Amino acid sequence: MYDLLKGLRVVEGAAFVAGPSCGLYLAQMGAEVIRFDNIGGGPDFNRWPLTESGDSLYWEGLNKSKKSVAINLSSPEGRALAVRLAAAPGENGGLFVTNFPAEGFLSYEALRKIREDVICVRVMGWADGKPALDYTVNCAVGVPEMTGHPDDPRPVNHMLPAWDLLTGAYGAFALTSALIARRMDGRGREVRLPLSDIAAASLANLGMVGDVMGGAPDRPRMGNALYGAFGRDFVTRDGKRIMLVAITARQWRGLLQTLGIGDAVAAVEAEVGASFADDEGLRFEHRDRLFPLFDTAFAARDLAEMIPTFDAQGVCWGIYQPLSAAVEDPRLYRGNPVFEEIVQPSGRRYLVPGAAGTIPQDARLSPRPAPRIGQHTDEVLLEVLGLSSGEVGRLHDAGVVAGPGA
Amino acid sequence: MYDLLKGLRVVEGAAFVAGPSCGLYLAQMGAEVIRFDNIGGGPDFNRWPLTESGDSLYWEGLNKSKKSVAINLSSPEGRALAVRLAAAPGENGGLFVTNFPAEGFLSYEALRKIREDVICVRVMGWADGKPALDYTVNCAVGVPEMTGHPDDPRPVNHMLPAWDLLTGAYGAFALTSALIARRMDGRGREVRLPLSDIAAASLANLGMVGDVMGGAPDRPRMGNALYGAFGRDFVTRDGKRIMLVAITARQWRGLLQTLGIGDAVAAVEAEVGASFADDEGLRFEHRDRLFPLFDTAFAARDLAEMIPTFDAQGVCWGIYQPLSAAVEDPRLYRGNPVFEEIVQPSGRRYLVPGAAGTIPQDARLSPRPAPRIGQHTDEVLLEVLGLSSGEVGRLHDAGVVAGPGA
Repeated sequence: MYDLLKGLRVVEGAAFVAGPSCGLYLAQMGAEVIRFDNIGGGPDFNRWPLTESGDSLYWEGLNKSKKSVAINLSSPEGRALAVRLAAAPGENGGLFVTNFPAEGFLSYEALRKIREDVICVRVMGWADGKPALDYTVNCAVGVPEMTGHPDDPRPVNHMLPAWDLLTGAYGAFALTSALIARRMDGRGREVRLPLSDIAAASLANLGMVGDVMGGAPDRPRMGNALYGAFGRDFVTRDGKRIMLVAITARQWRGLLQTLGIGDAVAAVEAEVGASFADDEGLRFEHRDRLFPLFDTAFAARDLAEMIPTFDAQGVCWGIYQPLSAAVEDPRLYRGNPVFEEIVQPSGRRYLVPGAAGTIPQDARLSPRPAPRIGQHTDEVLLEVLGLSSGEVGRLHDAGVVAGPGA
Repeated sequence: MYDLLKGLRVVEGAAFVAGPSCGLYLAQMGAEVIRFDNIGGGPDFNRWPLTESGDSLYWEGLNKSKKSVAINLSSPEGRALAVRLAAAPGENGGLFVTNFPAEGFLSYEALRKIREDVICVRVMGWADGKPALDYTVNCAVGVPEMTGHPDDPRPVNHMLPAWDLLTGAYGAFALTSALIARRMDGRGREVRLPLSDIAAASLANLGMVGDVMGGAPDRPRMGNALYGAFGRDFVTRDGKRIMLVAITARQWRGLLQTLGIGDAVAAVEAEVGASFADDEGLRFEHRDRLFPLFDTAFAARDLAEMIPTFDAQGVCWGIYQPLSAAVEDPRLYRGNPVFEEIVQPSGRRYLVPGAAGTIPQDARLSPRPAPRIGQHTDEVLLEVLGLSSGEVGRLHDAGVVAGPGA
């Protein structure tokens, strides 16, 4: 948590990963982020993983450091209230993050009737409004066809919701960009972020679309090998699996020296008429000749004996470990200053991150737990929307809003 | 391309995916992005995929719409010039994106000597400065152990450089956030973005760390099935593979109706004593009972006959197709207004994206091609750093800088 965005008031009406992670990134940089939730929670409020008592670790993970207003979003009055909140007043308000449909009651046109210069970042599935999720977009751009081991014809969905996460971070960037623009020209904007466009643009940015449009065949699945450079997983004598990548000439030479296979690699170079040190593409092209030399060398050495020379030579490697081991790895979780143990609404105490970025000049502020649904209903209605306590009481009585006890 | 960030001047000294994609997102939102490149190109200038003539589609994909200044970064004078450029003057300058080492000649302290309020977004491997890449971080947080088919014990690296892409987008957000803060408090900041922290924080935000720290076993690989909800790939009678996800009660009911398996599912519900419509977790728990019913139903139907009812009921599905087919899919590439055909420096004409987000209120500007290395050397030295033409000539003569012919 840092306070770079202190004073910004962002309202979030969003479920699943992309929208809530967008709001989370903004909160971790210091914005006040107010969610509105359906009374009892939205469609992802009970999403796995759950604690023994049924609380969602997923939900409380994505909604840390936010406030929650509980509104009956089925009622016309509740919907009107949500629109007012999304278009909240104030020089640094009118900033809305959502995945509600573009044509529904939270349409940009509806928001603009309340506040002309409102900014709305809208996560979508397809650009035409049809539903899509990370996994249903990912298969449509061909990533599962390129993932997995080459001896298995089945496509592989990666488990990481990468497009969701990317859309969330891009959404936070889009919101701050639109705010910078609004401060210049006074105009509001809606930035629509279909997962499908995020995915399609990303593969194009990596050169893959230019390749295929030029007639190259679709990239085959290559197991754990890197495309276009030298890298793969190897297993050491003591049974550790590591991912090893040599990009620069220095890394490559350091690697050959550590493994003592300089001569064997030179023999391959002489045979195929190539010099590997200065061309990562050639290392990739001839990987089937090179990998066995490395397999043999790793199988003859324990990991611990190689680490000092890897480190000295700048060789890039990482260990395969399950998340339960990563949690005890001081570079990743326990001992990493990005994380702090706090008690979340589930009652469970565990490590949660603040902002993933670190600013050496600024002190880290502690992450705050996720809210209970409706925990800030009254505070927000009174202070942000300026309702009277009588009005707030009436909304409670009418079942339009609810506090944390509901 | 939009002009939300018009007037910002960002300098980029970065290779590989994360840093350059950060600069790309900023350029696509209207910032002027000036790369400095080693004369002849940096370590990723020849990265695959390549055209027949050896030009990198990867490099030109990530560096669209930017300018390039070619500097000899091995020479002290070249390094001093790069520092001056990174800390470029102007109210909206002093914005630097890099993956150069934190302690090297482009350290934050070195930049601050030129400009006290400089903002630096620095992509790193590990937070302690040790090298890491997407793949070597990904295995360390356990993702490959959770990816792939359950009948195969091998871990699977996903091919998508998800942590790189996420770090790039988060970096663009961090830069605009730091600029918003600088306009308030006048202070510069360095935001360090280790891939390791981006990855560690992301899994924590999804609830996975709270789960494991509470004693849950590591999540097993589940093939193409979704965790905690109903979703998997299915093959239709006409041999189409689709990813199908039913999250909401409406989607679930629509799906059962389309497939005509309401009674069979009700029988499972009676047998296991569960109601699936309102609890996605239960659908996941009993997936081994449910999947065979769906397999059979899909094998008896062609995809085309199901699409109208899927669409009418809001069922979420996507087709598995290779990228070469996706390129012809009008929702993704050809016909998608996010993309435009331009000629890149390789000479190849193909579809490239502008900003992945769409702003209905604003006109899209055309994406510009990537620069040739050194294409803007003189322009930038004269106009941004204010050198005289005599000084620029001397730098050329001394081999400190080069134009596009070098």
